[in-house]
Amino acid sequence: MSKEIPYKIYLEENEMPKQWYNVRADMKNKPAPILNPATMKPITLEELAPIFCGELAKQELDDRTPYFDIPQEIQDFYRMYRPSPLVRAYCLEKKLGTPAHIYYKFEGNNTSGSHKLNSAIAQAYYAKKQGLKGVTTETGAGQWGTALSMACSYFDLDCQVYMVKVSYEQKPFRREVMRTYGATVTPSPSMNTNIGRKINQEFPGTTGSLGCAISEAVEAATTQEGYRYVLGSVLSQVLLHQTVIGLETKTALDKYGIKADVIIGCAGGGSNLGGLISPFAGEVLRGEADYEMIAVEPASCPSLTRGIYAYDFCDTGKICPLAKMYTLGSSFIPSANHAGGLRYHGMSSIVSQLYEDGILTARSVEQTEVFKAAQMFARVEGILPAPESSHAIKVAIDEAMKCKETGEEKNIVFGLTGTGYFDMVAYQKFNDGDMADYVPTDEEIRKSLSMLPKVE
Amino acid sequence: MSKEIPYKIYLEENEMPKQWYNVRADMKNKPAPILNPATMKPITLEELAPIFCGELAKQELDDRTPYFDIPQEIQDFYRMYRPSPLVRAYCLEKKLGTPAHIYYKFEGNNTSGSHKLNSAIAQAYYAKKQGLKGVTTETGAGQWGTALSMACSYFDLDCQVYMVKVSYEQKPFRREVMRTYGATVTPSPSMNTNIGRKINQEFPGTTGSLGCAISEAVEAATTQEGYRYVLGSVLSQVLLHQTVIGLETKTALDKYGIKADVIIGCAGGGSNLGGLISPFAGEVLRGEADYEMIAVEPASCPSLTRGIYAYDFCDTGKICPLAKMYTLGSSFIPSANHAGGLRYHGMSSIVSQLYEDGILTARSVEQTEVFKAAQMFARVEGILPAPESSHAIKVAIDEAMKCKETGEEKNIVFGLTGTGYFDMVAYQKFNDGDMADYVPTDEEIRKSLSMLPKVE
Repeated sequence: MSKEIPYKIYLEENEMPKQWYNVRADMKNKPAPILNPATMKPITLEELAPIFCGELAKQELDDRTPYFDIPQEIQDFYRMYRPSPLVRAYCLEKKLGTPAHIYYKFEGNNTSGSHKLNSAIAQAYYAKKQGLKGVTTETGAGQWGTALSMACSYFDLDCQVYMVKVSYEQKPFRREVMRTYGATVTPSPSMNTNIGRKINQEFPGTTGSLGCAISEAVEAATTQEGYRYVLGSVLSQVLLHQTVIGLETKTALDKYGIKADVIIGCAGGGSNLGGLISPFAGEVLRGEADYEMIAVEPASCPSLTRGIYAYDFCDTGKICPLAKMYTLGSSFIPSANHAGGLRYHGMSSIVSQLYEDGILTARSVEQTEVFKAAQMFARVEGILPAPESSHAIKVAIDEAMKCKETGEEKNIVFGLTGTGYFDMVAYQKFNDGDMADYVPTDEEIRKSLSMLPKVE
Repeated sequence: MSKEIPYKIYLEENEMPKQWYNVRADMKNKPAPILNPATMKPITLEELAPIFCGELAKQELDDRTPYFDIPQEIQDFYRMYRPSPLVRAYCLEKKLGTPAHIYYKFEGNNTSGSHKLNSAIAQAYYAKKQGLKGVTTETGAGQWGTALSMACSYFDLDCQVYMVKVSYEQKPFRREVMRTYGATVTPSPSMNTNIGRKINQEFPGTTGSLGCAISEAVEAATTQEGYRYVLGSVLSQVLLHQTVIGLETKTALDKYGIKADVIIGCAGGGSNLGGLISPFAGEVLRGEADYEMIAVEPASCPSLTRGIYAYDFCDTGKICPLAKMYTLGSSFIPSANHAGGLRYHGMSSIVSQLYEDGILTARSVEQTEVFKAAQMFARVEGILPAPESSHAIKVAIDEAMKCKETGEEKNIVFGLTGTGYFDMVAYQKFNDGDMADYVPTDEEIRKSLSMLPKVE
């Protein structure tokens, strides 16, 4: 009946998406508007202008337009590392002895090591087009910073990265990749910004946090002529660019007549998950199809499964717009023994609203189990996965094992967001048997949630 | 006239090679036979049996059979990460403003980070088929060790890697990747072997060398029941497996009617270069076509450009078979400031003979220039290249710039063997302006050549 399915489905370059898909256009319950922290009212394009590039601000606020054209320059860059393969995990299936068919969309075959480049190049393009000198950003695990450095280098833009101090020190190689691409990398909190100096004074010796690095990057953008701030996740514009993942996945599946049953993505801020599921969620929202969609988050930073749906600050310094999202509270910091990314306190507004409306479900998993899945995957599929991506692997394996019990031949599709080459400290801990799990107590979460802002 | 050439030419899975090509079959001047160090006579299959797997020993000695079938199990594994793309370097061409068309065969999109996996999986397969318990090997920069770990894990074989001590200490992450794949990694010289103990006693505090690690691995293989030794370069069997690179390249070029003018590969032991050029060299040897083929080696380890063509030991301990090759002498060790691989004192017998016969030429390049080329390539093509691969990039750029002067639209094809994610210490040196070049003096080379064995 159907064509034989190769190990890797590659689209032809002329089958690649020419538009991004804005799932908000099909959502009856739109994500709540982001608020100006000064007025606590929905923020306007004008108010966003000092922070974001004009085109990106428009994308951020537009919840009606279903498709945005991908500018030719971005399509050209995409062709350097895309289409990414949709891989049939034949070897994993055999190893598990499952009747399920497992597919993964592999976004790690580029030097940034992850899907982050999809949005980085778009954001750098719009910044260049606006005639800016450069952009500022924060990075935690380093994938976003690397991606942005690559994108800025391509368009000859200055790139200033505030890197969470603990990562800066523990991941010198990530830092060097960014420097090779010409970026300036500053450990955060730094003495470059008011907020950095303040935090250094209040908490001497602090190793920083993502929320603090965001505040520094925003301050740096707004106090330098010709600079804007860019962000690698959470925002609706980022999810829009990342739909290139889901659109390619859908086209590849359709090409072989495959109907996905379960779609799984890891979720930190929601950039990969949102990008992967958007086209599928759109079909569900329009009543055209049905999919089981699962967000997988770390048990140590469980915003969907244990947070609440409320307006919250996006950064520690409280200078960014507020977003309504599933959140653990902006003061929540995951345990130091948590490896890898997925450590943001909140979740993209789009993903949060889809979750609230029951379009997708969520699960949290502990990291020792995640690394066990990662190791098995590496050994049979030949790719050493990023810790973040391995959260999706873990649940894909769980689902495939359920099929083994029931005999169902489900099509399981998951997002393999990146590679773990810069995460070997975490793998070493796992190899040495020194990896620990940590689940925050109810009391901890209650405490950080008690500091949520009051919004009418 | 011709089809529009995409950024990346991917073969269909059914276009992938089903046989490896043995270029020796088409060579009138065969590479000289390898010698038994005990008898100084051409080694026999029986004499090789304690060191190598039977099938691999046969491949090593067979200079008549033009094609060897690739076993189905190896073809299946190849399909997990191959075909590798042949990339049209549109962005590099634009940056250089050259009329030349530049193509590179990119072998870095797998977790071993290089082409080494092509032979590792073959060697592991034959070991498994022979019912062995495991294999031993050495690794310097770590790419080969990683590739072999992956291959052994796939076939459930024990894998013992002797890693040059200085690399073991400077590249802990490489070590962890191997451990994640279940390999045992021992810093060499170790106290596990007679030769290791001897070297440690004679040279206390030594940080090891590739030649020493080879000796240890061979001793470990021959003193354990059910083990054999495997090697990632130099040998004819390795070049045979690596012809999958050249065969895919040729098929991809033919598919679009492209005739290569210049073919460039970096050369350490010759595994990538030999694999890339074999099918093209075959055409030249059969009088069917003409190509300019260039081997690029580091100025700090210039076996082709400054060595002599003679029988030499392959290892420090002098327990391996001897090979006739371009060599700097088995006691030659490149300066400590040399970054990356390509540090072997000799060159594959096949490549050496082709060079002797004028089928290919050779150039040596200094590492600061190599890293400049690497950085430019990374910025415009989006791939952070391995230092080894960057030797080929440097000469490809030189050739493209010549075309800019002459206006020639040459087709330049080079091998991009791998990624530099585990070489950030070297990149850091370059980023900090601390990278130095080193060219051995004539005296140094004379000294190591004076210790060549006497062979009648």
